[in-house]
Amino acid sequence: MADKAARRARFAGVYAKVADELLVELRKEGIPEEAVEWYQRNLNYNVPGGKLNRGMSVVDTVEILKRRPLTEEEYVKAAVLGWCIELLQAYFLVADDIMDSSITRRGQPCWYRDPKVGMIAINDSFMLSSAIYRLLKAYFKGDPCYVDLLEVFLETTWQTEIGQLIDLITAPEEVDLSKFSLERHSLIVIWKTAFYSFYLPVACAMYLCGISHAPIPSTDPSEPAKDPYDIAKSILIPLGEYFQVQDDYLDFSGTPEQIGKIGTDIIDNKCSWCVNTALLYATPAQRQILDDHYGKKPSGGESELKIKAVYEEIGVREKYAAYEEKTVGLLRARIAQVPEYERENTLRREVFESFLGKIYKRSK
Amino acid sequence: MADKAARRARFAGVYAKVADELLVELRKEGIPEEAVEWYQRNLNYNVPGGKLNRGMSVVDTVEILKRRPLTEEEYVKAAVLGWCIELLQAYFLVADDIMDSSITRRGQPCWYRDPKVGMIAINDSFMLSSAIYRLLKAYFKGDPCYVDLLEVFLETTWQTEIGQLIDLITAPEEVDLSKFSLERHSLIVIWKTAFYSFYLPVACAMYLCGISHAPIPSTDPSEPAKDPYDIAKSILIPLGEYFQVQDDYLDFSGTPEQIGKIGTDIIDNKCSWCVNTALLYATPAQRQILDDHYGKKPSGGESELKIKAVYEEIGVREKYAAYEEKTVGLLRARIAQVPEYERENTLRREVFESFLGKIYKRSK
Repeated sequence: MADKAARRARFAGVYAKVADELLVELRKEGIPEEAVEWYQRNLNYNVPGGKLNRGMSVVDTVEILKRRPLTEEEYVKAAVLGWCIELLQAYFLVADDIMDSSITRRGQPCWYRDPKVGMIAINDSFMLSSAIYRLLKAYFKGDPCYVDLLEVFLETTWQTEIGQLIDLITAPEEVDLSKFSLERHSLIVIWKTAFYSFYLPVACAMYLCGISHAPIPSTDPSEPAKDPYDIAKSILIPLGEYFQVQDDYLDFSGTPEQIGKIGTDIIDNKCSWCVNTALLYATPAQRQILDDHYGKKPSGGESELKIKAVYEEIGVREKYAAYEEKTVGLLRARIAQVPEYERENTLRREVFESFLGKIYKRSK
Repeated sequence: MADKAARRARFAGVYAKVADELLVELRKEGIPEEAVEWYQRNLNYNVPGGKLNRGMSVVDTVEILKRRPLTEEEYVKAAVLGWCIELLQAYFLVADDIMDSSITRRGQPCWYRDPKVGMIAINDSFMLSSAIYRLLKAYFKGDPCYVDLLEVFLETTWQTEIGQLIDLITAPEEVDLSKFSLERHSLIVIWKTAFYSFYLPVACAMYLCGISHAPIPSTDPSEPAKDPYDIAKSILIPLGEYFQVQDDYLDFSGTPEQIGKIGTDIIDNKCSWCVNTALLYATPAQRQILDDHYGKKPSGGESELKIKAVYEEIGVREKYAAYEEKTVGLLRARIAQVPEYERENTLRREVFESFLGKIYKRSK
């Protein structure tokens, strides 16, 4: 396995190729150059600048499933699917930033805040989503997995939109903590993040490797055979939930040096795991402080400090440590039960161990 | 053929059915009732209240292609595809109204202007689009036409977004008529309107009737055989362009009693066929008036009257009449060349004659 920077550079090379192909296609249709250049700026501003964990995990997973280095053609197909996931994320982020009135994203102003862009960003976000289906058609039409890929992207889009809706109506502009709960948090996180960030990359890799939905026998003979995609989901959805809980926790506990930014969940009235945990254990006096001070700016102000003090009193740090140990234990148990068969293109535990290894006890 | 109101009522009945199924599906997933009700309001506010011409034209076209009354199952499938087109339109209109800062739509405030909705309307528009693919999966998965239907909706979405982008960068907030031209108008109209309003309903009906892409021999033996979808496109795209030119012309020439609204294209700086025609023929003095007064409110104000006077001087009415006769002649000639074979599920000229009959010399 090449080192991390080289892997990233190779993956980025496929972005350059597919972005170019999308633009060439538009020019062939006689679209005015001004519009083609707009689309090019939209793609380059919003798609390639993230951590690329989601996209690159498609390639990683295909390599694990194939149990051998990929041919160039296999690599490109896996990376194209990875970029489709990055396009899906870009589509959501461009739109979410408008809905949340966000200021910056990935260290640059949000796209809609460019004075030339403004609300055109809405149509631009649509065009990022449509690029997914242009690429799927260009690279997979005729492949046995084509319809499965179309469906899994469409369904994941739908799931993420549902998650975004639940999030938007749970944490509206006026602070109302009575709408929050750990159950609601779990629902938002699963729908808004876990499906597209964890299940989708693995499902893409599985389809690419020709893994069918046919049930596979369990290692425990008393258990029924299961659809391998259901097995993957039963691990990756809780794993994605754990990832987001950890993200919420790091927003509170991580130092700026660790997480590369200053946490803003408290002042932004986010339905975070931390506030939901605090709400569960708060005394009436602590609850009053949460009600009075949650979602109040400025960063580092008195309100934020009061909320953080309540988190410390309640022991959010200890409760997170306990949550993490319990969840990782559960995930390891589920992974140990994944039926493995020693032939190519069947499910392997290493797929899930690899994800878990990247997440467990991360500090950034 | 039942009368128009009964046909409309039957089509509306299918909306009630599919909207209910979309909500039932969400409830089964354990989505909070508050979110399900939000989605219900989104659907009911934005989808069923239009003229329904696009949606109902799928049913009309299937009836013509089948040359016989439809079974109940055939009717429902055709109507579901019709509602998918209405969903696609709702998706674009909800978003376009935000991008254009529109005030009303179909006689009610635009969805985003509901104070509870605001920018959540962006995610709501996404969810209208996703509903298309939930319905296609529910009604067509396993059908031979399933992938074709997925592809034609995805491709038409893409085309319409391109049209919207060209429109947005051609008519930005500051008036700049140097960006306008009849060629640019044609491009915007074809991409933004003609594909989804005219080609998409007919393509859906053709796929539903099992018409393949296999080339059909021409009536003229010196001409090559053609893909029936290409034949349909070669008529429906210019027909859609004619429809939009007519729409632009009626915005200028129609009385409020005729068109049911007051035309606002001039004060809204729209890239309309009328202004583009005026620009082509304007003397330098007339051009100066267009530059100084186009896109200036209020409705009925001095600027609008000056623009209208220039249109009259240039003879936009006569030029429209000439355009209409020439275009209709060309369309009739193309329709006459459509190869017809007397068996079920092949292309019929009546499909196109029916569309043209509804549009030619309409006054509202």
